Amino acid sequence: MNKQRIVIIGAVALGPKVACRLKRLRPDFSVTMVDQDEYISYGGCGIPYYISGDLSDIKELMSTSFHMLRTPDFFEDAKDVRVMTRTRALGIDRRAKTVRLRRLDTGLEEDLPYDKLVLATGSRARRLEVPGGDLPQVMRVANLRDALAVREKIAQGQVAKAVIIGAGALGLEMAEALGDLWGVETTMVEIAPQVLPGVLDPGLARMVLKNLEDHDVTVHLQEKVREIRAGEGEHALQVVTANRVLEADLVLTALGVMPNSQLAADSGLAVSPQGGIVVNPRLQTSDPDIFAGGDCIENTHLLTGKRVYFPSGSLANRQGRVIGTNLAGGDAVFPGIVGSFTVKIFNMAVAATGLSLAAALAEGLDAVSALVIQADRAHFFPGQDLMYLQLVVEKMTRRLLGAQGLGSNGDALVGRVNSIAALLSRGALLEELSNLEVAYSPPFAAALDIVNATANTAENILDGFNRTVDVAEFEKCFLTEQAGDLVCLDVRGAANAAPYVDLFGARWLNIPQETLKDRLAEIPADKRLIVVCNSGVRSYEALRQLETAGLCNAVNLQGGVAALKKSGLLGSEEKEDRD
Amino acid sequence: MNKQRIVIIGAVALGPKVACRLKRLRPDFSVTMVDQDEYISYGGCGIPYYISGDLSDIKELMSTSFHMLRTPDFFEDAKDVRVMTRTRALGIDRRAKTVRLRRLDTGLEEDLPYDKLVLATGSRARRLEVPGGDLPQVMRVANLRDALAVREKIAQGQVAKAVIIGAGALGLEMAEALGDLWGVETTMVEIAPQVLPGVLDPGLARMVLKNLEDHDVTVHLQEKVREIRAGEGEHALQVVTANRVLEADLVLTALGVMPNSQLAADSGLAVSPQGGIVVNPRLQTSDPDIFAGGDCIENTHLLTGKRVYFPSGSLANRQGRVIGTNLAGGDAVFPGIVGSFTVKIFNMAVAATGLSLAAALAEGLDAVSALVIQADRAHFFPGQDLMYLQLVVEKMTRRLLGAQGLGSNGDALVGRVNSIAALLSRGALLEELSNLEVAYSPPFAAALDIVNATANTAENILDGFNRTVDVAEFEKCFLTEQAGDLVCLDVRGAANAAPYVDLFGARWLNIPQETLKDRLAEIPADKRLIVVCNSGVRSYEALRQLETAGLCNAVNLQGGVAALKKSGLLGSEEKEDRD
Repeated sequence: MNKQRIVIIGAVALGPKVACRLKRLRPDFSVTMVDQDEYISYGGCGIPYYISGDLSDIKELMSTSFHMLRTPDFFEDAKDVRVMTRTRALGIDRRAKTVRLRRLDTGLEEDLPYDKLVLATGSRARRLEVPGGDLPQVMRVANLRDALAVREKIAQGQVAKAVIIGAGALGLEMAEALGDLWGVETTMVEIAPQVLPGVLDPGLARMVLKNLEDHDVTVHLQEKVREIRAGEGEHALQVVTANRVLEADLVLTALGVMPNSQLAADSGLAVSPQGGIVVNPRLQTSDPDIFAGGDCIENTHLLTGKRVYFPSGSLANRQGRVIGTNLAGGDAVFPGIVGSFTVKIFNMAVAATGLSLAAALAEGLDAVSALVIQADRAHFFPGQDLMYLQLVVEKMTRRLLGAQGLGSNGDALVGRVNSIAALLSRGALLEELSNLEVAYSPPFAAALDIVNATANTAENILDGFNRTVDVAEFEKCFLTEQAGDLVCLDVRGAANAAPYVDLFGARWLNIPQETLKDRLAEIPADKRLIVVCNSGVRSYEALRQLETAGLCNAVNLQGGVAALKKSGLLGSEEKEDRD
Repeated sequence: MNKQRIVIIGAVALGPKVACRLKRLRPDFSVTMVDQDEYISYGGCGIPYYISGDLSDIKELMSTSFHMLRTPDFFEDAKDVRVMTRTRALGIDRRAKTVRLRRLDTGLEEDLPYDKLVLATGSRARRLEVPGGDLPQVMRVANLRDALAVREKIAQGQVAKAVIIGAGALGLEMAEALGDLWGVETTMVEIAPQVLPGVLDPGLARMVLKNLEDHDVTVHLQEKVREIRAGEGEHALQVVTANRVLEADLVLTALGVMPNSQLAADSGLAVSPQGGIVVNPRLQTSDPDIFAGGDCIENTHLLTGKRVYFPSGSLANRQGRVIGTNLAGGDAVFPGIVGSFTVKIFNMAVAATGLSLAAALAEGLDAVSALVIQADRAHFFPGQDLMYLQLVVEKMTRRLLGAQGLGSNGDALVGRVNSIAALLSRGALLEELSNLEVAYSPPFAAALDIVNATANTAENILDGFNRTVDVAEFEKCFLTEQAGDLVCLDVRGAANAAPYVDLFGARWLNIPQETLKDRLAEIPADKRLIVVCNSGVRSYEALRQLETAGLCNAVNLQGGVAALKKSGLLGSEEKEDRD
């Protein structure tokens, strides 16, 4: 092979990974990275932790783990990679195999020849397309410059009140960043009826919402921002929705991102209707001499086979290595994604992989979900806390489709979700999760760990042994409509049940599970029963007993009282007995 | 199906799980559990945490998560399961389908008929077969009675010095239990040349050893206990090995367990030469009406296809469910194990899955290992700490064979190991781990997480790009033999390298990696080089540069200085620059 000239457009995440991998395999190749910005190779996902004050210096996001700044000089010296910053790629001449560049500082233009080209153009933050959306105090945190500006403004004490528009992952991270250290009074506005729309199912999203509210973040769901205008009093801005006017010193928009694929489209490369560059598993575009990866491409979803847009700094790194290998003459593939996700929100971690129930149903898959609430380690081990994990399974095939959960111990939660992600990517069935051999020791897991328990619960539902309702159904039928033929059968001990018996009277019947077989006569035969315990396990046991006794008009509340409380219903989350 | 009579022999882990699962599916079945002990259904794996004082009351190990004691009455009332404690199974008449029982309190015997029988006889602790091994102060912690006795003795202040014989998982847990809260001066004696023999490879085991020593535990490896005898001075016992006499007030033996399979063998059921009851994937013994699971059976290792003995309270729970399902008329299978394992030792967690390198080689597999040391979250995130993860891969097929690691954040480590366990159980190849979609957010993972990085490093080794030596080889060649033609090339910054240059003089050459391309002339062409950085990443980069320059007589120290320090070589583990 002759000395190859490789040009990489974009030098934040994928670009540097491609360059470094390639140079290690083929030091003889000439590699040039081009970026229109002056900052390159930074950890954009760390921006909320700079703004929060967790990181004292933004340079930490631009440094290697050995505290070396990843500057153009660093790439030149340590990696033998040429870097051209403040240089915009204007167009690609695929026949001549050149990229037209403009030096932003001088305005000079030049044609850079390539043998292979890599598009690492990333994504850009969606703009708020309303009147006033371009006011100077309406900011994004899409790059380091934005981040510096936002933190400076806060640190100077200019921000008492903030409004965050968009309750996706970045919006939630920003709510924590503003509230936790800086004490900014923060309000979120989200157009969808839940936080983390498209990621979490409504039940878990409600628990996240409660966590935000518990941390003094006000959240307005299903509200569209109509206008932003200058404030009249002490605050610089007013955010106007259909329902209200919110005062703010700072507005942050976190409306998601869009692929930067215009350059690809202008060059005649295949780009999907949603805007992602189309690539094959080797990450080649429709021109085999041009590769693309990271936030500017579309991926194949391994569970649906469909093309999806799923921007992630982690995918960019993995895809960068695949491209680097292939440019060096190798044959690496990136088969697709399952959509793994995690976010930290104050003292709560949320993680997900695969399809939510809503997404699975929207795909036309006949799916069911199972929610298990269980300690994140042996229930007797000091410091254990409840973890909430929901599994989504295809009914007929019993194929695993997804999992999502939350809990106070993020490492423990993410570990569980990752182990399920590993199964998802290989098309595993439910029984494989039942038997998944997670490592066991009381400090780190339960003897029958929540990942196994969730699979078992799903199986019990699919086999018809466990008939369930979720918190939303419970709220609608029992709390809101107060259906007259509906009785809660609380099978916990009397002390746990007492406040509810006081509250609901005859509609809340307490018969501890271990006494149920002798007290079946007390159950009103003409009522429908919702069987309730603290987490849904003892109530499942009771459901089986009722059915044996011919009482088949009963359902089990998934997640039990723990799920109700975590959702903000029926009291707060004091520590109490569990099951 | 007629009303079936199910008899379960053993009521600690598997037995109760079988009984409860079965009764939920088939409440009409008659289920009887028999156990020779008075304590049943307890979490034996929690015993070290009772002895340590983490648990105040041993009842916590016998309670449900909702604080109900799992007594015979509880099983009777809540589960409709009959329990006969202090009742020993003397024999099985497979033709008549009866079990001969003896009531230990009365001596009365009876025959209990069964339609299906379950052997849940578990395991027993190996005894120390030396003179004095049966002295009263030589104790095990095999069951709750032992645990109560040991803790009482310690709590009464009778134990200033203890000797633990056996440095497997239980021995290590006991070392923490005795030392951490009670301050007992603890010495361990292990016959193998390392701690956690058969689980960890020697390199990681050495890091565990250093951690024990850092916590004031004295460990004598490769020493066999010859005798235990009454003490002469203030301590009750003397433990005599070939090399020394150790004074002790208490000796704990932790020599592993053996399957309780005599009853099965006496009944003519197939039992392996190692003593485990032989079962098929449905967990039926050689008599299809008799099932067995948990610590008394042998399992199929999914990576070797061979039968192995791998006792685990967690496997017992999973297998119990499979047996329960099958007894109810279902068709569940337990295909086998990959050998997932974890243990907490003071502030360090150790976890493993699959085969160690030593085990793989012993199986005749042509395997290689890769060690990666990397932050357990984004390197810029506060509170991050180094994680040590080693991967074992089959060379020709690139099949994943195993992973093992350690770190201060057990949840994070176990999560990584579990995600690899999920791949192992499905015969995955290396590239699947390279692309494994672990969830990313700076608080919980690195953009290119250690699980991916470990796969990438293994691939680089297999592809011949990364030629490595490990800590043991470094110690032998560079420190012990001081081979004259061997020079360490330290490619870190000058400040990090300075102490080593002082120490080793011309044998330790410091050229920071980013300056290497201009300083190649300084490298002695007649020497063999060990390239060193803090973790092995920059040194890999340097190795590639050297090779490009025609300097092929160089190898990379896996894990770098971090691995040396963690192993107790070349200084302690202060925080310093990383790579």
